[in-house]
Amino acid sequence: MAAASGRPVAVVVGAGDATGGAIAKRFAQGGYAVCATRRNLDKLQPLVDEIRAAGGEAHGFASDARNEDEVNALFDDIEGRIGPVEVFVFNIGANVPAGILEETARKYFKIWEMACFAGFLTARKAARCMAPRGKGTILFTGATASMRGSAGFAAFAGAKAALRALAQSMARELGPRGIHVAHVVIDGGIDTEFIRENFPERYALKEQDGILDPAHIAENYWMLHRQPRDAWTHELDLRPWIEKF
Amino acid sequence: MAAASGRPVAVVVGAGDATGGAIAKRFAQGGYAVCATRRNLDKLQPLVDEIRAAGGEAHGFASDARNEDEVNALFDDIEGRIGPVEVFVFNIGANVPAGILEETARKYFKIWEMACFAGFLTARKAARCMAPRGKGTILFTGATASMRGSAGFAAFAGAKAALRALAQSMARELGPRGIHVAHVVIDGGIDTEFIRENFPERYALKEQDGILDPAHIAENYWMLHRQPRDAWTHELDLRPWIEKF
Amino acid sequence: MAAASGRPVAVVVGAGDATGGAIAKRFAQGGYAVCATRRNLDKLQPLVDEIRAAGGEAHGFASDARNEDEVNALFDDIEGRIGPVEVFVFNIGANVPAGILEETARKYFKIWEMACFAGFLTARKAARCMAPRGKGTILFTGATASMRGSAGFAAFAGAKAALRALAQSMARELGPRGIHVAHVVIDGGIDTEFIRENFPERYALKEQDGILDPAHIAENYWMLHRQPRDAWTHELDLRPWIEKF
Amino acid sequence: MAAASGRPVAVVVGAGDATGGAIAKRFAQGGYAVCATRRNLDKLQPLVDEIRAAGGEAHGFASDARNEDEVNALFDDIEGRIGPVEVFVFNIGANVPAGILEETARKYFKIWEMACFAGFLTARKAARCMAPRGKGTILFTGATASMRGSAGFAAFAGAKAALRALAQSMARELGPRGIHVAHVVIDGGIDTEFIRENFPERYALKEQDGILDPAHIAENYWMLHRQPRDAWTHELDLRPWIEKF
Repeated sequence: MAAASGRPVAVVVGAGDATGGAIAKRFAQGGYAVCATRRNLDKLQPLVDEIRAAGGEAHGFASDARNEDEVNALFDDIEGRIGPVEVFVFNIGANVPAGILEETARKYFKIWEMACFAGFLTARKAARCMAPRGKGTILFTGATASMRGSAGFAAFAGAKAALRALAQSMARELGPRGIHVAHVVIDGGIDTEFIRENFPERYALKEQDGILDPAHIAENYWMLHRQPRDAWTHELDLRPWIEKF
Repeated sequence: MAAASGRPVAVVVGAGDATGGAIAKRFAQGGYAVCATRRNLDKLQPLVDEIRAAGGEAHGFASDARNEDEVNALFDDIEGRIGPVEVFVFNIGANVPAGILEETARKYFKIWEMACFAGFLTARKAARCMAPRGKGTILFTGATASMRGSAGFAAFAGAKAALRALAQSMARELGPRGIHVAHVVIDGGIDTEFIRENFPERYALKEQDGILDPAHIAENYWMLHRQPRDAWTHELDLRPWIEKF
Repeated sequence: MAAASGRPVAVVVGAGDATGGAIAKRFAQGGYAVCATRRNLDKLQPLVDEIRAAGGEAHGFASDARNEDEVNALFDDIEGRIGPVEVFVFNIGANVPAGILEETARKYFKIWEMACFAGFLTARKAARCMAPRGKGTILFTGATASMRGSAGFAAFAGAKAALRALAQSMARELGPRGIHVAHVVIDGGIDTEFIRENFPERYALKEQDGILDPAHIAENYWMLHRQPRDAWTHELDLRPWIEKF
Repeated sequence: MAAASGRPVAVVVGAGDATGGAIAKRFAQGGYAVCATRRNLDKLQPLVDEIRAAGGEAHGFASDARNEDEVNALFDDIEGRIGPVEVFVFNIGANVPAGILEETARKYFKIWEMACFAGFLTARKAARCMAPRGKGTILFTGATASMRGSAGFAAFAGAKAALRALAQSMARELGPRGIHVAHVVIDGGIDTEFIRENFPERYALKEQDGILDPAHIAENYWMLHRQPRDAWTHELDLRPWIEKF
């Protein structure tokens, strides 16, 4: 299983944020031909450039993961032009808190569509590619909200709980078919532009390692992929040492 | 808070099946004016007739719980014509198992739409009615799949996990506002036409109380509603004595 | 199955506190001959007197539930003199928080011995009485700490988690033998002398129903016992409406 | 923090079995001076010899982890003679299934004493060593029974659930003090002499990677220890690809 370049292929859907970008870089560094997607291709170019500058292989794709036809075409294109997909990472989030009385139907739907339905469409297609080969790794990014529904988080917790249920169903179904499905619960602030600009007090915790470094998160995705099949992890959590839980 | 008849009002969405019907009858028996809904009004008439024949008050409504406008209009109609809603029960399920490789996008969406999105639309509207009065009970029907994603159940487990997250978020947000939100996990076969016709071996367990009697399920909904606010249950499970778990 | 008096028999171990006392009273009111135990018989007399004054049947026993021989002798005495045990409630707690660095081996052991080992000894003996008759109810009192180990609660959380595991094992093993095993998670302050004297600010919440009334807790134990065997609850939580969780 | 030899120190309590031995070897290979303990020193010698032959540093200690004085003396001896303890692994199990009606008080106690109380005594002492230095890693070996009490497993599930609660309490208390506490849930058969001799059918799964290789388990302990403090895992599971869960 390898790219035209001879490299095995990893697809990262939701490579637009810091975490997705770091995961893409980690797999490129590990010798994978990385196919990174987000809705806006322009914003993806710096990541592709950075990976290539470091000697890695990267391909950027504009793709709306909520659209079944686009998703199927994306994977078919990758499998046809680049190579068989060995690793798939779903990393789209969409958290916009709201009280239950104020939450709109549109936003409740949109959050589910991005954080869960897109995960179903892409992971199902990835599994369809992998299953006949009896091999592959499918990784989902979870959050604190994957585990409990807190006040103000009905939409996000619902989407993330559903995504976790998808990961569990797929692990139980596809594990015995040789596909490693795992779910990473990220419980804490991440070192991103967004946190820096919107939550400066939280961002200040960075000095004492109080927010997660995307590269450190990515290392765990790589580790999960490398686990031998007699000792697979289905779920692990990641949080800064000072985070309350 | 009472119906035009002087009775307090309970709304049961998804009163078409055995469980929903039994819940409606239990609240009617407890003195409530029961507003029962399902998509097809004709099929609801026997339930309404049965409640009335027993001296209770029942009103049937055709309503698509997945349609925001219909849902809002339904509650407004009930509050205007019948009385303030004190109890709301969401009891729509939609389990059609499928392997992840065969699951269709359409079915994955439909199951979520019925088992979760409709729950959001109706419970949100119920909460909007109840919150200003600082009083009310909102009850959700859960299932085994609410707790874990098994092989073949990605769609149903996703919808039920999301509904459970909704129940948790609402409980944490609305509890301190006087609204009791609870989630009932039904873990086992229920004594229904569907089980009798499609799973005769399972139905045969009825002789030894191996499937759940809808009236016994309903008793727990009534009990939850009657709990004083210093000792509220958020979640309980129900299963036959011989059920493995 | 009935006492010499014709009443069925309920044994409440740990009837010394407000919750245990209220459970004893509830079952006495329901027509049961209640056998209440605590280590010090003198302190039990007011409960026995109160039940009898209300027309109920109560018997007080001094018994150390951590002592295997005493436990076995207690049940043999009750079965011989009073009647076959139909209900058993284990209600001993022992929470004395301490940081892990300061926790003593003696206290860690004592808390486990009281809150868990005594539960094993008494519930096992109760099960041995009930199993040949294929009937009975075994109820355990749990706490917030049953579900998670918080800072400062290593000993109590360990004992309560172990007790919950015992309840789960027994439910799975004894359910199909006709014995209903359930675990009640009490999450909040209870209206007791202890809270009134030591946590006056918390006790003040009583005015707004912010602490649990033991009689309301007891009602749930009674409800669990009365559930028909096609719809048994294994676990439920109880908390005041304003309690954070 | 280093041994007299200049190496940092890792203590593995319960190094007698395949998993403990593999963990000891992994940390030795990583440059640690490994202090391995079990009750019988003779049986430890082959492990110590193997590590030394590979160029690593190992020290064997006979120690009963259930004895507070022995535990404290062990760590004091190690800290005094070898160096400050940076890593502590608790790896003692003690699973002997029994039905609840047949389980003896003695065995219920012994299983808790070995699998939980010894964990408290050793981890508390390790934490007391580490806390003043604001640094260290404490790792606990869990099992399927840590998560649920199955029929026939009341004693083992109780001990493992209590150990997990200990790990949670310590993580929440000691994380913000710089000590990484993690719990590894091993869900499946392990490649050991015991399984080979007693469960040959299960052992035969080895050919298809159906039982866990201790070296692969150990790799995860090493990984957990190496995680930077902004992205710590508290819990992960490990199971063979074909294991049902």
